Amino acid sequence: MSQWSILDISMMSLAISLAEKGRYTTRPNPNVGCVIAVGEQIIGQGYHIKAGGPHAEIHALNAVQTNQQQDKLSQATAYVTLEPCSHYGRTPPCALALINAGIKRVVIAEVDANPQVAGNGIRMLQEAGIEVEVGLLTEQAKQLNLGFTKRMLTGLPLVTIKLAASIDGKTALSNGVSKWITGPEARADVQKLRARQCAIITGVETLLADNPSMNVRYEELGSVKEHLAESEIKQPLRVILDSKARLTNDFTLFEIASPILLVSCVEYPAEVRERFNNHVSCITIGANDDGRVDLHALFTYLGKQCNTVLVEAGATLAGSVIKQGLGDELYLYQAMKLLGSQGRNLVQLDDYQAMSDIPKIQLNDTRRVGADLRMIFAL
Amino acid sequence: MSQWSILDISMMSLAISLAEKGRYTTRPNPNVGCVIAVGEQIIGQGYHIKAGGPHAEIHALNAVQTNQQQDKLSQATAYVTLEPCSHYGRTPPCALALINAGIKRVVIAEVDANPQVAGNGIRMLQEAGIEVEVGLLTEQAKQLNLGFTKRMLTGLPLVTIKLAASIDGKTALSNGVSKWITGPEARADVQKLRARQCAIITGVETLLADNPSMNVRYEELGSVKEHLAESEIKQPLRVILDSKARLTNDFTLFEIASPILLVSCVEYPAEVRERFNNHVSCITIGANDDGRVDLHALFTYLGKQCNTVLVEAGATLAGSVIKQGLGDELYLYQAMKLLGSQGRNLVQLDDYQAMSDIPKIQLNDTRRVGADLRMIFAL
Repeated sequence: MSQWSILDISMMSLAISLAEKGRYTTRPNPNVGCVIAVGEQIIGQGYHIKAGGPHAEIHALNAVQTNQQQDKLSQATAYVTLEPCSHYGRTPPCALALINAGIKRVVIAEVDANPQVAGNGIRMLQEAGIEVEVGLLTEQAKQLNLGFTKRMLTGLPLVTIKLAASIDGKTALSNGVSKWITGPEARADVQKLRARQCAIITGVETLLADNPSMNVRYEELGSVKEHLAESEIKQPLRVILDSKARLTNDFTLFEIASPILLVSCVEYPAEVRERFNNHVSCITIGANDDGRVDLHALFTYLGKQCNTVLVEAGATLAGSVIKQGLGDELYLYQAMKLLGSQGRNLVQLDDYQAMSDIPKIQLNDTRRVGADLRMIFAL
Repeated sequence: MSQWSILDISMMSLAISLAEKGRYTTRPNPNVGCVIAVGEQIIGQGYHIKAGGPHAEIHALNAVQTNQQQDKLSQATAYVTLEPCSHYGRTPPCALALINAGIKRVVIAEVDANPQVAGNGIRMLQEAGIEVEVGLLTEQAKQLNLGFTKRMLTGLPLVTIKLAASIDGKTALSNGVSKWITGPEARADVQKLRARQCAIITGVETLLADNPSMNVRYEELGSVKEHLAESEIKQPLRVILDSKARLTNDFTLFEIASPILLVSCVEYPAEVRERFNNHVSCITIGANDDGRVDLHALFTYLGKQCNTVLVEAGATLAGSVIKQGLGDELYLYQAMKLLGSQGRNLVQLDDYQAMSDIPKIQLNDTRRVGADLRMIFAL
C-alpha cells in the first residue's frame, strides 16, 4: 500500500464531497464522486446524480471533453470514491470507459461490495495496464454508502429508527397529544433524514392515531432546497405494517401520489383493495408469534430494492426492531420537556430482570437542533 | 457607577475564586472572598472557610499582618465578593474591622441580602470616610450564594432535584433494579453535588427500597479530596419524609452518626422513637390533601438553617416538588441506555391534557460525565 501524498488526499477528499451531493437522489445506487487530475490540475470532475443516469466517472470524463483537456488523459489520475463498475447494468461499465479514455492511474477509496463488481473493476483496469491504488480515505468513503454496502453484503437494508421524546422518555400525553414535543428545527432535521431514505416504515396504529402523510415536505428541507428542486426530490417508499389488513383508502397518505407499500399478514378484502390507487401495492408476509408482520422477512423483502429504511413508528414497532436486533442506528430527538409518568412510553421492550439484559446501544453523536437534542446511537 | 479598570476586574475575579474554595465548608454561611491590594500588589487575601470561623475580610487582614504590609493599608483597596457584615454575630462586624484597619477603598461585588446587613455594611464604611464602590462582577458573585440569597429573601432554601434515568426516562427495571444505570463518573459527580448541600431529602419509599446511607462518601469526591481532608467535609442533614411514621431504627443510614431529620405527619410511637440515636431528630408537619408531608411547610422549616437542599427521591416526591413549583433546579443524569416501557418512570406529574399544561423547564447546561450526560435545568 502506498504512502499517500497530500495531493492524493486532497483530490480524494474533493471526490468524497462531490459524492455527498448525490445523497438525496442516487438511491438505490451508491453515492460516488470522481475527480480526474494531472498533478494539481483538475481536468474533470463529477458525481453520480441519479440512478439510471451516468455514473460519476462518466460525468468526470465528459467534463474533461467539455474542458478540452482529453489530450492530458494519458498523464491523468482518476480519483474515485468507489471501485468503478465492471458490469453492464443500465449503463456500460465505467472501468471500460476509463480504459478507453486512456487514463494513466486510478485511485480508489473503497472496493465495491456489490458481488457483480467486488474487485472485478480493479482487475479490468489492471489488466489494461492502468496503475491502480486502493485504500485512500476508505473509512470516510464508507460513510457515504453504509446502506448500499449492508444491502450488498447481507441483502438487508440499513435500518434507522427515529424517535422523539421528552427527557422523561414520553412521546405523547396520555390522551395521545404529541404536537409538538420537539421544535420546528428538529422536525426539519427529520425531513432531511427522511429525504435520504429509500423507504419509511410505520405501523397502522400510528396511522390510525395521527393520520400522517409520511412524505418528504420540500418546504421544510431548509438548506437542501438550495441545490435541489422539488422535482428532484425522490419520495421514499411509504411502507405501512397492517398485519390484520385493517386499512382503507380514507387516510391522508393515500392522497399523495408517491408509492405506498401495504404489508399485511392476511389479504385485504377485494372491495377494499379495489379502492386503493395505482401507487399503492400490497404484499402479505407471514406473522410472528405475536401475530405481527415478521420483521426479518419484511427487511429481506425491502432489501431487494432499498439501501436504507427509516422506522418512524410507535413504541411497539420501534421496540420490536430493537429487541430483534434488526436496527442499525437510532436517531433520538429529545425535547427539553417533562411530560410526566402518565405520558406514552418511548419503546416497548422486554420486562428485563437484570441490567445486563438491556439492549446494547452506543452514542455516536449528540448535537443541539434548535431547542432539542439530537442523539445518534449505534444499535 | 464607575467604569471598572482591568486591575479592579482582575482583583475581584481572584476574590471570587477564593470564595469558591469554601463551597464545601461554609454553609449555612455564604461563600465570600477578599483581596486587599495596593495597585497591582496584593498585600493580603482570604476567604470564609467555615461558619463560626473568621470571615473573608478578617482572613485577608490577618494575612496583611503576616506579610508585614499593614503600613500600606491606608492606600489599599479591599475587594470583597459580598458586602462586609455590619452586625455582631458569632464574630464582630467586618465593616468595623476594615474601618479599624484604616483601609482606603472597598469594592463590593454583591450587596448582602441578609436583612441584618442589606446596605448597612456599606453605610458603616461610607460614614467612616472609606470610598465604597459596588457592582463589580455582581452576576458572577451571585452564583456563589444562590441558596443563601434565596433563603435571606424568601425564607426558603434553594431546592435542587437530582434524577438519574435512561434515555427513555426510566429509573429502574420493573423489579426495582437500578444498579447501575449511570456510571461511576456520574455517581462521583452526585457526591460533589451532595457535598455542597445543607440537606438531602428523600422519601421513606426510597429508603425502604434501596436502604441508602445518604451521606457524602469522601472516597468518591475525586478532585475535592485534593484540598479538603475527610474531617473538613460537613455531612448534609439527611431528611426523610415519612408521613405515616413507618420507619424504625433498622436502616443503614442510622448507622452513620451525622444528623438525620425524620419528618412525619403523625408522631412516631414512643417505643420506636426511643430506639433512635442522638443524631436523629423528629418533627411533625401537617399533611397535604394527598396525605403526604406539606412540602411548602417543610421547606419553610428547613429554610431556617439550610441555604440549599437536594431532593434525591423517587418519581412521586420529585414530581410533587416540580408540580408545586417548589424546585429551583433539576440535575438530570442521563444514561445512554434503553430500559423499555416496563421500567420505572422518572417523575409522577399530573395527567396533562394539553402540551401547554406541562411544567416549564429550561436547559442551562449539558455536559458529558463519563459515559452519561448531565443536564441542568432551571425549574
